[in-house]
Amino acid sequence: MPWLPSNGFSDCPFGALIERLVSDQKIAVIGGTGDLGFGLVLRWARAGVPVVIGSRDAKKAQDAAERANGLLDSGMLPGIETSAIEGMENAKAAAEAGVIVLAVPFPGQAAILKSIRDALRNAAEGPGNNPIFVDATVPLAATVGGKPTRLLGVWQGSAAEAAREMVPAKIPVLGAFHNLSAEALQDLDAALDCDILVCGDDEAAKQKLFPLIQLIEGLRPVDAGPLEMARITEAVTALLISVNRRHKVTHSGVRITGI
Amino acid sequence: MPWLPSNGFSDCPFGALIERLVSDQKIAVIGGTGDLGFGLVLRWARAGVPVVIGSRDAKKAQDAAERANGLLDSGMLPGIETSAIEGMENAKAAAEAGVIVLAVPFPGQAAILKSIRDALRNAAEGPGNNPIFVDATVPLAATVGGKPTRLLGVWQGSAAEAAREMVPAKIPVLGAFHNLSAEALQDLDAALDCDILVCGDDEAAKQKLFPLIQLIEGLRPVDAGPLEMARITEAVTALLISVNRRHKVTHSGVRITGI
Repeated sequence: MPWLPSNGFSDCPFGALIERLVSDQKIAVIGGTGDLGFGLVLRWARAGVPVVIGSRDAKKAQDAAERANGLLDSGMLPGIETSAIEGMENAKAAAEAGVIVLAVPFPGQAAILKSIRDALRNAAEGPGNNPIFVDATVPLAATVGGKPTRLLGVWQGSAAEAAREMVPAKIPVLGAFHNLSAEALQDLDAALDCDILVCGDDEAAKQKLFPLIQLIEGLRPVDAGPLEMARITEAVTALLISVNRRHKVTHSGVRITGI
Repeated sequence: MPWLPSNGFSDCPFGALIERLVSDQKIAVIGGTGDLGFGLVLRWARAGVPVVIGSRDAKKAQDAAERANGLLDSGMLPGIETSAIEGMENAKAAAEAGVIVLAVPFPGQAAILKSIRDALRNAAEGPGNNPIFVDATVPLAATVGGKPTRLLGVWQGSAAEAAREMVPAKIPVLGAFHNLSAEALQDLDAALDCDILVCGDDEAAKQKLFPLIQLIEGLRPVDAGPLEMARITEAVTALLISVNRRHKVTHSGVRITGI
């Protein structure tokens, strides 16, 4: 059940504008077939947000979308109108969304960013087009065979700052969703209990993302300051993995007190 | 009102052993005249723990101890027996405690560790002597004139790992208390709401520290894993400073959920 029809306005004089407004509210999750991405897709779709799964392989994206729609149909809460999920190739997904979330393992980040660069540039063109880019990449050493409690050194300081170099300058880049348990996120019966630390240098982009975070029950956006703070918010993921090990749990999270 | 007399057992055959047991429970806060150290001293003393303020200058330590005792006398909770605080030179303080907490600005860490090295070595000698060392140093760039939301690079990886190199090998080193608001800690009317992320490679040392953390209302110890995780727990301080700025508060803290 889609939140709004994706193209039902072409016979109306304001069609183009309305379509633009609709797609500005749409979230593309690049890497939406992976654990974190798929979990975000499920949660947003359940909240009625139009969401698109991007993958390098369109077929894989469509399969994941089908699986997600199935999970939502069976696990749908009464009275909540979920949104039908679509799957497509990364660049196509990025081109038609107002919020592009990158949720891929660190070793794939640069190649995927290059592959969607033109699509992002096109998406940012035209009046009223203000897409934002949200990087959720964590440079865990485990992604190249190291320990999950350790981080790789990233020349720019953090994966989010590396993304900033590769995303077209017109599009603001935020870092967020690093510290979420992908396992809990994908289990629609699991209650989430985590703050989302958001870093970035563009205030308007934060104001666009915050309500989308609040749509997912159990999550709260916290403004963590400039993009360079992603050096720390990304690292907190490794800290939580270490806490998980010591406390024999799988989904510790973080809450900021006193704000 | 001291928790136990500091030397009332000399005419008893078990005097030496009992004195050792007493001093094993004693906490020396090196840098106890600073904001964080002084706050820890106040909170522990109020909980009835024998605590000593160490400073490079014995007179400064004694003045701080006097001030702390005054604050506790006036702010004492009914029914809670506080502990009289003593002040002395750093090395002397370190020599007679079972738990040595270092709470100094980063630029002073190395020099102070050198100055107490012999005292620590002596403290660790003799049967039954098992002092532990707890490093609370945060290598904030602000301590050398930089931004409070940035960190200095420490060759060993973290201030706690730097301390590990300088503290005699027989004494276990933990990292803790990085993320506490010194302001809230010193205000005995302020309710604390923060987890204490403890890193270290010695399980017994953690088991010795955890109950001391629990004695301070509002704090909870969380095992964050090996000492190298101090690279992240120290960095979380800069993150909280950034959150403070964005949210216009002065004492944000961190809680781990899901454990």
